[in-house]
Formats: sequence, structure tokens, C-alpha cells
Amino acid sequence: MISHTDQSAVTVLGLGPMGRALAGAFLDAGLRTTVWNRTPGKDRELVERGAAGARSPEEAVAASRLVVVCVVNQDAGDAIMRHGPVTDALKERTVVNLTADTPDRARDTATWAAEHGIEYLDGAIMTPATTIGTPAAVFLHSGASELYRRHRPVLDALGGTHTHLGEDIGRAAAYDIALLDVFWTAMAGYAHAIALARAEGVTARELAPFAKGIGTILPAIFERGAEEVDSGRFSGEDNPITSAVSSMAHIVHTSEAHGIDAGVMRAAEGLARRAIGRGHGTDGFLRITEILNPDAPGRPVATL
Amino acid sequence: MISHTDQSAVTVLGLGPMGRALAGAFLDAGLRTTVWNRTPGKDRELVERGAAGARSPEEAVAASRLVVVCVVNQDAGDAIMRHGPVTDALKERTVVNLTADTPDRARDTATWAAEHGIEYLDGAIMTPATTIGTPAAVFLHSGASELYRRHRPVLDALGGTHTHLGEDIGRAAAYDIALLDVFWTAMAGYAHAIALARAEGVTARELAPFAKGIGTILPAIFERGAEEVDSGRFSGEDNPITSAVSSMAHIVHTSEAHGIDAGVMRAAEGLARRAIGRGHGTDGFLRITEILNPDAPGRPVATL
Repeated sequence: MISHTDQSAVTVLGLGPMGRALAGAFLDAGLRTTVWNRTPGKDRELVERGAAGARSPEEAVAASRLVVVCVVNQDAGDAIMRHGPVTDALKERTVVNLTADTPDRARDTATWAAEHGIEYLDGAIMTPATTIGTPAAVFLHSGASELYRRHRPVLDALGGTHTHLGEDIGRAAAYDIALLDVFWTAMAGYAHAIALARAEGVTARELAPFAKGIGTILPAIFERGAEEVDSGRFSGEDNPITSAVSSMAHIVHTSEAHGIDAGVMRAAEGLARRAIGRGHGTDGFLRITEILNPDAPGRPVATL
Repeated sequence: MISHTDQSAVTVLGLGPMGRALAGAFLDAGLRTTVWNRTPGKDRELVERGAAGARSPEEAVAASRLVVVCVVNQDAGDAIMRHGPVTDALKERTVVNLTADTPDRARDTATWAAEHGIEYLDGAIMTPATTIGTPAAVFLHSGASELYRRHRPVLDALGGTHTHLGEDIGRAAAYDIALLDVFWTAMAGYAHAIALARAEGVTARELAPFAKGIGTILPAIFERGAEEVDSGRFSGEDNPITSAVSSMAHIVHTSEAHGIDAGVMRAAEGLARRAIGRGHGTDGFLRITEILNPDAPGRPVATL
């Protein structure tokens, strides 16, 4: 049993596409890997590659000191872990929870883990399953530094870059949802732009090269914008909110003239108009961060 | 007078930051440049550099066969051009209208121009005023090909890349508002992400390097997505809409738990849920283009 509980053993609970990719990377790194999934059969290829297929989550947990959980959301994670035999088996083991959910759920899970003598780290995977085990993978982690340092060698088997964001257990989830916010809002904008272009007789393929051009300029604009928000100085010299609102109104008008829902842009335009209404019309667009979050005027507010 | 109406002369109406940049680039290229602005005094620096400062728009128009208009919106453009003496002066001249507005306004202006014997091209400037005269400038044009070819040598003095999108006069404005849709929606997402991160004790500067990472992956995703929309085949293999909706719900929940308006994301989530409700839950997110524009299922629909 000792070899099953040392630093070269890891258990993966949850074998969706991401869980299978994680387990596969651990196997490729030569780690003794035990796997389990609620729906049977998902472990077949992994077992063929050398993984131990556990018959129950408690058996899977018993096989390793480090248990990586990657399921669809924290409700699914709780359904597995907050079950007597599994909770008992987790005692004095470490859970690295790579399940995507909210910061408050991460904090809640950490409180539960502490009450049951379970060591707990929370994490987020920022890149698709296909990147796992490659340099392109991006992992964010939060929780006790000592715990992170202890398990870092095993986590490194997953490839890519790992960043420990701090001891606040909710921090990885906070970054995760903020970054997904950027991603899915941008995708909603792109989908809407395509719908609008097609209504004007322009195909998605025709629009794409120029849309890619917009994508290309965003990183530098994001970087400058972060400086503005943290300093509370919003330069609208080249592009004031009034100009943004004028463009937004054109987008809403043309969408709705084609019968296309403009709810996303209407919501964004409303925020910008509120910033103008508060006297910030000559400022840059990111002044709306203060409309969104009036408790944080010019400075970050910690929740803990 | 002949030298004032040949191919080496150009008039710029409108001397905001963009109009001044355009006139400056024409001057730098050695063109005989005449300028006018409704509010006096904006032409001072340009006149010092060799521009002719006209006392009225009709005088400015009379000075060149090519008249570039760049004002805040088409209402402002109409206020200048649809005025007897100016309309008369424009007869048999060419207007290149770089004023940002909607495709329907471009079509309306073209109809008016044709009725008054004025040759008309519509265009859009996709990059900031600081790029004018440099290789970074991006110009889109639409209207009669012959007219575009005739004036292209003068337009080239503005630097950057010029693309003629076709004879439909509304096409440059259609691309313009679709691309501004991508840009401003993405910026609204970034502003919201920052507000959310700050409520969780994460500064904008801390989030920025990861947000830049999101920006970096967008161009390739935009390109693949365009293929999906035009082909009507939406692969959700790696990332189905159901997974997007789960992330969106986390974003809305965490925002509102901090008192942060989540209207933009709520609108986007609603579109995604409607796609799921129509049986497309395993498809990719861009299936929502068909929720947005049901008239264009799997193919572009021309409006003319």
C-alpha cells in the first residue's frame, strides 16, 4: 500500500474530456494513476494505458494521497465527495479541485474540507482539454502555499504553466470567471457581428479577416486599460465614451432594423450612457467599471 | 483654377481629430489641401503647414474635384452637404464620405447624391487617428469600382491598407458596425471582468496578463467560427453551448452576489439558452447566430 500513497501516485475523479486528458497526462509522466467516473466505461482507454480503474470513489481515493477532482460543476463534486465513505477516505489526503465553479463555492468547499481533516487546493484550467500535457496548458491555483509547493511536482506532470495566485482559496475561481467573462462576452459580440453582417449580405468568412484584426489589437488595449482602472484615470483623448455610445447606437439601430436582438449591446450602451450621465463623457470607456462596481472607485476592494 | 480641380487637390470637410489627421496626411503627401470646419480655429495648424483654409464649405468644395467628409455622424454630414450652395458646389465632384454611420444612412446619402449629380463613395476608418499616414491605418470603401479606381491614388496618400468591398454603397458601413460590435462588446466584457475581479480582491493589473491571453486566442477562434457559421455546421465537441451556459451562470451569480450589474452577460446567456431550447445544446456557441437572425439559417441573406 505504501507505493500507492506516495508522491508518485495520483487519483483522478471525473472522466469527462478534461478529466481523461488530466489522467492521460499523469500516465504519460509515469505516475501511478487511479481513475473513477460515475458513469462506467469512461476509464477503458485509460486502463488500457495502465491506469487502475477503481470500482468506487472511496476505493479511488484510498489509492493516492493526492486526489484531483474534475467534474462538470461543484454540485457534481459535492455529490461525490460529501458522501460518508468518500469523505472518510479523503481524511488527511489532499484534494486539488479543478472543477469550474464560483469563488463562493470554492470557499464553501474549503470550509467543508477543513471540517473533515481534508487538505484542499482549488484550481482552474484556462485552456481546452487538447492542451493538457503540452506547453500550451494554463493552470491557476489557490490555497495554502505549503500545500501547493508539496504537490507542484505532480501537477507539473500536466504540462503548461502553473500559477499560484495566493492563499485565498477563491482566487483561482475568481480569475477563472473573470476570464470566462472576457471570453464569452467577446464571443457573444462576434456572434452578433456575424448575424448583423449576414443580414447586410456579408458572409462570416468575408468579415473574419477584419474581425481577426480587432482581436489582434485587444491585448495591448487590455493592458493599457488595466492601468487606467487601477489608477482611476481614464483617458478618453483618442476615444471618449461619447464616441463609443454613438457607435453602439448605430449597432443597435441597424440590428433592430433587421429584426436582430440587440440585448447585449443595449445593456452595454446603457452602462456607457450612465457613465456619461455622471459627467464622465470625455473619459475612456473603462470608466464603466465604476458604474458596474460603485464600491470600488479607483481601488480594489477585497472581500475577505 | 485648373490646378485646384485636378488630381493633386483634395478638400477635407470636418477637422475633428480624425479629419485633422486626414488633412495632415494629404499635406505630407504634397497634395494641394483645402480644409473647412464648422467651428473656426481647428484649421490653424493645418494652414501653418500649407493647407488652404476655406471660409465656407462651398468655397472648400469648389477648390477640389475630390471632397473627403469626416464629421461626427451623418446628421452632421447632412447639415453641411444638404444645404443649397454646398449641394450646388458638389455637382460633378466626388464625395468620399468617411463619416461613421449606419448602412442605411450611407444608402440614403448615395441616393441624395445621385439625385444631385454628385459622385459618391462611402468609407470607414477602422483604426485610430494616430495611425493615419502610417502603414497601420485600415480603410474600407464601397461604391462604384470605376470611381474608387479613379480616386485611389489620392486615397493612398492616407497610408495603410485600402480595401474596396464592392459596389453596394452600404457595405463599408456594414463592415464598420459589425467590427465595432466585436470591439465594443469585447470591451464591455473586459470592463465587467475587471469589476468582478476587483470585487474579489484582484486588481485590474493582476488580471491583465491573463486577459491578454484570452485576447491572443480570439483571432484563430474567430476564423474557425466563421467557417462554422457559413457552413451551418457548429461543432461543440470541445466546447458545447451547455458548457458556455454553465460558465455564464457562474458569472451572473458571482456578479450579482457582489451587486454588480450583469445585464450584458444575462442577455448573452439568454441567447445561448434559447439555442439549447431549440435542441442545439451539443453545438458550438456560434449557433446563436441563427437565434439572432432566423432569416439567415446557414446562408447569408442579401438586403438589396
